[in-house]
Amino acid sequence: ELQALLDGLHPADLADVFESLPLEDRLAVWQRIRSDRDGDILLEVSDSVRESLIADMDDREILAAVEPLDADELADLVDDLPTEVLPELMASLDAQDRERVQAAMSYEDDQVGALMDFDMVTIREDISLEVVLRYLRRFDELPAQTDKLFVVNADSVLTGVLPLHWLLVNSPDKMVREIMAPDVNTFRPEDDAYDVAQAFERYDLVTAPVVDAGMRLIGRIAVDAMLDFIREESETEALSRGGLREEEDIFASVWKSVRNRWAWLAINLVTAFVASRVIGLFEHSIEKLVALAALMPIVAGIGGNSGNQTITMIVRAMALEQVGTSQVRRLWRKELGVSLFNGVVWGGAIGIAAWLLYGNPALGLVMTAAMTLNLLLAAFMGVGIPMLMVKLGRDPALGSSVLITAVTDSGGFFIFLGLATIFLL
Amino acid sequence: ELQALLDGLHPADLADVFESLPLEDRLAVWQRIRSDRDGDILLEVSDSVRESLIADMDDREILAAVEPLDADELADLVDDLPTEVLPELMASLDAQDRERVQAAMSYEDDQVGALMDFDMVTIREDISLEVVLRYLRRFDELPAQTDKLFVVNADSVLTGVLPLHWLLVNSPDKMVREIMAPDVNTFRPEDDAYDVAQAFERYDLVTAPVVDAGMRLIGRIAVDAMLDFIREESETEALSRGGLREEEDIFASVWKSVRNRWAWLAINLVTAFVASRVIGLFEHSIEKLVALAALMPIVAGIGGNSGNQTITMIVRAMALEQVGTSQVRRLWRKELGVSLFNGVVWGGAIGIAAWLLYGNPALGLVMTAAMTLNLLLAAFMGVGIPMLMVKLGRDPALGSSVLITAVTDSGGFFIFLGLATIFLL
Ligand SMILES: [Mg+2]
Ligand SMILES: [Mg+2]
Ligand SMILES: [Mg+2]
Ligand SMILES: [Mg+2]
Ligand SMILES: [Mg+2]
Ligand SMILES: [Mg+2]
Ligand SMILES: [Mg+2]
Ligand SMILES: [Mg+2]
Ligand SMILES: [Mg+2]
Ligand SMILES: [Mg+2]
Ligand SMILES: [Mg+2]
Ligand SMILES: [Mg+2]
Ligand SMILES: [Mg+2]
Repeated sequence: ELQALLDGLHPADLADVFESLPLEDRLAVWQRIRSDRDGDILLEVSDSVRESLIADMDDREILAAVEPLDADELADLVDDLPTEVLPELMASLDAQDRERVQAAMSYEDDQVGALMDFDMVTIREDISLEVVLRYLRRFDELPAQTDKLFVVNADSVLTGVLPLHWLLVNSPDKMVREIMAPDVNTFRPEDDAYDVAQAFERYDLVTAPVVDAGMRLIGRIAVDAMLDFIREESETEALSRGGLREEEDIFASVWKSVRNRWAWLAINLVTAFVASRVIGLFEHSIEKLVALAALMPIVAGIGGNSGNQTITMIVRAMALEQVGTSQVRRLWRKELGVSLFNGVVWGGAIGIAAWLLYGNPALGLVMTAAMTLNLLLAAFMGVGIPMLMVKLGRDPALGSSVLITAVTDSGGFFIFLGLATIFLL
Repeated sequence: ELQALLDGLHPADLADVFESLPLEDRLAVWQRIRSDRDGDILLEVSDSVRESLIADMDDREILAAVEPLDADELADLVDDLPTEVLPELMASLDAQDRERVQAAMSYEDDQVGALMDFDMVTIREDISLEVVLRYLRRFDELPAQTDKLFVVNADSVLTGVLPLHWLLVNSPDKMVREIMAPDVNTFRPEDDAYDVAQAFERYDLVTAPVVDAGMRLIGRIAVDAMLDFIREESETEALSRGGLREEEDIFASVWKSVRNRWAWLAINLVTAFVASRVIGLFEHSIEKLVALAALMPIVAGIGGNSGNQTITMIVRAMALEQVGTSQVRRLWRKELGVSLFNGVVWGGAIGIAAWLLYGNPALGLVMTAAMTLNLLLAAFMGVGIPMLMVKLGRDPALGSSVLITAVTDSGGFFIFLGLATIFLL
């Protein structure tokens, strides 16, 4: 009964089952999966669950599992397989597949070459649609997501594409050359997958040809790979912003979780320690006016929040290429304006609260001034940090948030305690 | 020359141009766009840019712009049009289109009904493929992304689907009934678009039928809408995590930016104020041992960071349905384990640093104990907050981060200053 249920599930659904099972149960279910389905499931699960499943298989099982996979799928898995099975695995492939696996593996995860497949149907331009229709009828099935045929010459050079439905609405007497579209969205295997995903979104593509420098057709990129890529990108971004190095198997051991999280905690601890030393500089002032200790986290906190808003806005505009480093003055002007406004309004409100709480109007004024200055610092750095990272050729989405928080914490403490030392003591 | 360039660009690329232009330039270019392309561009730009473009058009121009649009596209725009054009606009539609616009508008942004289009090609099951091929040849073009035909009976009830390529690989003598697929991924207009996007990703769909309770075909959902939806979802999530209510036109006025950001700042100020009052409870202790003021932000900060890691991990697992409220104990056990480890290691390191800095071993011990306890509090609440939100039927991705930071700030100050008051003074 369980067996029938498992056999009836789609590999992607089975992958979900594995993700949500604790290790013991996961491996018990894994034993009951038919070996010809193992490969498809390994492709769908997350890296950490894949690792746990492969660790449970012997070499024979692994070779049987990957046997039914396409070259592009195999390339996705190879990194996660034990090295001792690789020679036998590669030897079992024919020359074309071996070459394709090696080609796909030679690209980075975020390049088109790593995401392409080889499921293209090619035709010649000097035949009639009638002949194309007869040719297609010899297939049992066209590859998944096929929405167009690729027109190539004898040297495999792409000369155009023929959308499937043009084949249907045009008279069979026409020649491919007459109706094919010569100008198409073609991509190179070394293209950035992020840009290609934007093109798919923009031009509503389903598949697109991948060609080399000489326009020779080498593969195909399909929208299902783009959907997966976009989802993974946004996952990775969410994880890194939340301080996780990679996705975490929720049933992983404590030790694995610790390793996944320690780097971010360490960086944050270092910045907190620096901020603590800044406070240490003003211990005499705090001793004399202990209200400073209670108020200082407010100044630091609002600066961090406001700076993160600025960074979020700018990093997003940069990803969409709506803003470049040439607009830095314009952005500074606007963000400093927002901060000035917030400093006067929110800083004013908190200043009045401090005055009423501690019966000290000068303390209230210092509070307002410090909040305004720290907000201005947050705006200045919130624009400057991502701009500088781009100039240095780094990804502004990574690390900007930790940096701005470090600056506004230490800066906020310094500004507030410094002003208080000058004007209140 | 500029005109030729503008006419040659795809609407999605023009939309990008508008996003990256300051307001004056933006409106100058907008004047030069041919009016039959206005509608497609309005569909592609962000909400805030759309608002600025529509504000520049008179009623005549608006009606001309939306005239070429499909019913589903119109439904996307209607909310942003001035109300005075709506009566004339609706009167200009035929009965079917009017009904479709109203149907599409009656759903929430994240429901299938708001994302579906009406570009379906339907056929009957009691005809041969030959007849289907002849029927299709009468089209000038099939709708974009058409990968399958929908098979309906005389009452518009969906009885199956016929992938386009099956039409090509099968003999034309066969009947539709013989080869169509009866069991398909169908969706209801009230379905959650997030779930449907997962189904598209999982089963590699290109289009899917949308049916009502009686299985009558009412629309189609296509992968291009899903790509847009996934991208927008991840945008919205990134923005709200960064404290922006909605996407911001980077060239918007200071005042608009202030309105977009004030709510998050206000919430954070309130939580910072509460934390400040917690510190206020211990002002006597700080007066006696001023080192406490310098050390307390470290305790609060590490708790916030660690709690956010836990929340990120759990919110993600919940979105992927890998974890439910039944696993709360298991997760608590693991997260408390991670915290205990981190408390001993990082808390120990910082405790030793405090001891060396202030020459006070007891202070170091209190520091280590407080960090460990605050990390345990962060783990407890990091699991508990999203679980509770799900139980209350709320989206755990919204607000969890602000809540955990509030708890670990106030909690961290209370634990550290409380322990110090008891053991050091
Ligand atoms: Mg097995
Ligand atoms: Mg991998
Ligand atoms: Mg396969
Ligand atoms: Mg690949
Ligand atoms: Mg494939
Ligand atoms: Mg699109
Ligand atoms: Mg115009
Ligand atoms: Mg809208
Ligand atoms: Mg259109
Ligand atoms: Mg719509
Ligand atoms: Mg459409
Ligand atoms: Mg998929
Ligand atoms: Mg959501």
